[in-house]
Amino acid sequence: MQKPAKIILGIDPGTLVMGHGIIAVNGSSMQLLEMSVLKLSGKKDNYERLRMIHQHIVALVKQYKPDEFAIESPFFGKNVQSMLKLGRAQGVAIAAAMSAGLSVTEYSPKKIKQSITGNGNADKEQVWQMLRHILALKEKPRHFDATDALAVAICHHFQGKLPATATAVKKKKAPAKSRWDDFIAKNPHRVLKK
Amino acid sequence: MQKPAKIILGIDPGTLVMGHGIIAVNGSSMQLLEMSVLKLSGKKDNYERLRMIHQHIVALVKQYKPDEFAIESPFFGKNVQSMLKLGRAQGVAIAAAMSAGLSVTEYSPKKIKQSITGNGNADKEQVWQMLRHILALKEKPRHFDATDALAVAICHHFQGKLPATATAVKKKKAPAKSRWDDFIAKNPHRVLKK
Repeated sequence: MQKPAKIILGIDPGTLVMGHGIIAVNGSSMQLLEMSVLKLSGKKDNYERLRMIHQHIVALVKQYKPDEFAIESPFFGKNVQSMLKLGRAQGVAIAAAMSAGLSVTEYSPKKIKQSITGNGNADKEQVWQMLRHILALKEKPRHFDATDALAVAICHHFQGKLPATATAVKKKKAPAKSRWDDFIAKNPHRVLKK
Repeated sequence: MQKPAKIILGIDPGTLVMGHGIIAVNGSSMQLLEMSVLKLSGKKDNYERLRMIHQHIVALVKQYKPDEFAIESPFFGKNVQSMLKLGRAQGVAIAAAMSAGLSVTEYSPKKIKQSITGNGNADKEQVWQMLRHILALKEKPRHFDATDALAVAICHHFQGKLPATATAVKKKKAPAKSRWDDFIAKNPHRVLKK
């Protein structure tokens, strides 16, 4: 079987659950390869969880040989303690990707929602409905938590840019109208036809 | 040359500077193998810095083949944003150690100061004077920032316990007096003789 043009691994790393979504992109078509979650039991110690995240991503990279790696990252959280833990989870995920020679691109939750639905404040159901539409999925996902990770992979594809860094996310935004026009122009297939 | 009984790599990962200190422990003697810093220029992008941290630790592990890995970790910081960045820096450092099959033990700055000087509120100069005494160093370090990393390596040796996790640090403390007696009992060589 010929390898698809591009495989994107999207990760939503958390301290209790890590979601992953993997898509194959070939020209204008997109195919879901896998979406699932790694449950990090609250009973296991912190290092065991970090080790699980690391090993899981190493295994996914080995199995699917992604070309690109994208990660969902909030920029703000409830408290410093939880952000340190989240940063560590992200850090081991990023290290696993870097070890495989992959560039890392991160997107904020708002950016992902905006990219998928055109609305940065869309709820999970709206994002999921759009993912279903884009990937022509018929069934509900077995692991609903993984949809965020799938969304970041698709967001990365839609952004269609070279691997960038966190700083890219912070670039000055274009006025709302031109962003929307730009969105439509880049994503004609996402305009629902009546 | 015979390999020393135990080599400990101590890391103080920061977002601008990462210090490392490596000691060889043979019975009751301790020898400084290397202490230095990796400067992470503020101009480089976040991922480039994470990549530098990861590669640097991989290289140190390859060169010195440490048996144990200890890391300094504050549990609180100024704001969520800086803690996320710090967590990521720690995460890639931890991943590099885990990839080499090393267990990771973390210590809070207070714990390290307490272990080295007997005073959890000791200042940097007091910590350094004790490090000089312990390692019989004559010269000032070329990279003063690296002393924190050296301190965590020595702290880890003093703790003399099996690799533990963050949760170990949070264990209920013994009353102050018994801790001090315990400290003296475990570290007779550190009682200055008049």
